[in-house]
Amino acid sequence: MSSILVVGSVALDSVETPFGKVDEALGGSATYFSAAASVFADIQLVGVVGSDFQLSRLDFLERRGVDFAGLEVVEGDSFRWAGVYEYDLNTRRTLSTELGVFADFSPTVPASYRAADWVFLGNIDPALQHAVLDQVESPRFVACDTMDFWIEGARESLEKLLGRIDLLVVNDAEIRELAGEYNLRVAARWVQERGPRHVVVKKGEHGAVLFSGDSVFFAPGYPLEEIFDPTGAGDAFAGGMVGYLAYVNHENDEELRRAVVFGSALGSFACESFGPNRLAELDENDVFERVAIFREMTRFEELAPEGA
Amino acid sequence: MSSILVVGSVALDSVETPFGKVDEALGGSATYFSAAASVFADIQLVGVVGSDFQLSRLDFLERRGVDFAGLEVVEGDSFRWAGVYEYDLNTRRTLSTELGVFADFSPTVPASYRAADWVFLGNIDPALQHAVLDQVESPRFVACDTMDFWIEGARESLEKLLGRIDLLVVNDAEIRELAGEYNLRVAARWVQERGPRHVVVKKGEHGAVLFSGDSVFFAPGYPLEEIFDPTGAGDAFAGGMVGYLAYVNHENDEELRRAVVFGSALGSFACESFGPNRLAELDENDVFERVAIFREMTRFEELAPEGA
Repeated sequence: MSSILVVGSVALDSVETPFGKVDEALGGSATYFSAAASVFADIQLVGVVGSDFQLSRLDFLERRGVDFAGLEVVEGDSFRWAGVYEYDLNTRRTLSTELGVFADFSPTVPASYRAADWVFLGNIDPALQHAVLDQVESPRFVACDTMDFWIEGARESLEKLLGRIDLLVVNDAEIRELAGEYNLRVAARWVQERGPRHVVVKKGEHGAVLFSGDSVFFAPGYPLEEIFDPTGAGDAFAGGMVGYLAYVNHENDEELRRAVVFGSALGSFACESFGPNRLAELDENDVFERVAIFREMTRFEELAPEGA
Repeated sequence: MSSILVVGSVALDSVETPFGKVDEALGGSATYFSAAASVFADIQLVGVVGSDFQLSRLDFLERRGVDFAGLEVVEGDSFRWAGVYEYDLNTRRTLSTELGVFADFSPTVPASYRAADWVFLGNIDPALQHAVLDQVESPRFVACDTMDFWIEGARESLEKLLGRIDLLVVNDAEIRELAGEYNLRVAARWVQERGPRHVVVKKGEHGAVLFSGDSVFFAPGYPLEEIFDPTGAGDAFAGGMVGYLAYVNHENDEELRRAVVFGSALGSFACESFGPNRLAELDENDVFERVAIFREMTRFEELAPEGA
């Protein structure tokens, strides 16, 4: 089984949606990524939590092959986030962000991780993303996420990072801000010209678009009837995508297309519960079944141009 | 060649977009529908214009097999609409709507149209949509569009109309308002329970979704790099969809899926110029070529669940 090195946050999330609320649920980009990707690959996690963190909450991930040798426990408070989703579940309002021990985090990659082939740089300070990459010997495929906060506050470092990665995974608002361009095709090309061959734009309920070289591939959003909590869906998407690539051990254009569908499937599962609970109980077959539904949702037969 | 009866507006549109502006361009739902559908089928148009309307502006449609026997010319002003699109081209602001001769329109379906198999009821007062249907002998397939104005002002008549149609084509905001439900799957089922087996939800740049019985089919938006004017794209979508169905002379679920892709193709062409100019110059091959691109954009290979 291939393994993936992931760096990102392990956090405590307090979330309110029209379907309910939850206090201090397990959250964070590295957590959601790992919960999704571990269906298909072993994970090596780099992150930090405070002395207030109950490590037993990560047991379910350890049982699924997530290696926590790179998770530091530091005196102080864990990263906490609180937010509210409006009725349409597309509008998220952050109530509070407390970085805690994450504020002074300086990632150390354990020696046992340094030969990693697959790397996912979760949404953290680009300086830390660089620092992690510096410690990996010769990664085969590096994927990266970011957000408006870093686009505005650390643009130079972020643009330099683009030259070191193979895949950028961001949402539509983020790539528009990053490229200073509304049109997604044009914005994606702006990013590709700075490094990554592949760009995935996540559009929430509207699905995701892969720009790969000159080709474009769309995957729809899964038509869930009840979305309990979209928190972590983007990280689960990335986890499904990179997890699938590591699983098949290929990163050609055909596998990238499938990987986007696997990402969409994992992103949809993430919305079915508060926290990563739904992801925690998934097995390969659950994911393959949902991918088959995606296929059915987008399938149309070859055309007969002369009419039927 | 099959023919399609369409009722809707023939209007003069003044439109401003980030790419430019145009005064009194040829517009209206019946015009855009016909410009798109006439690539694949003969059209029988029912509508009204004022004495100020230059009929020669419709010559290009007549050459493409649009029959104007059902277009009344009445003393007075033609329907005029003026609007502005914001930079994202998703937000449209109406500056003025002057109904003119459309205010007192009472459609008469010419005897030569009454055997129509395929009918499209463009976005007008549901009472007029009923009146047209009353005059068609035994239509095989009836599609219908509507908008917020009628959902709010003529709900009873509109709900009754649902029981007489096979396909409702609306945008996402409209179906949410009609069904009083945000979730599109649930809203579509609400509509289906009131009559039409098929519901298409248009989502602009995010594509379109077909709910057909219990199945769901997605087509993406076409990734245009420059969208000159989205006016009429929804009617061109309907024209591509119903035009294709009439062309293949089938309305089974497989053909409906393809029809949504043809609709998406025609909707994208409509955005490439002000007014219906781009649609006017299309031939079948242009459309088939774009449909092939849609296929390539959504294609992914069968999975090998045991890994590669």
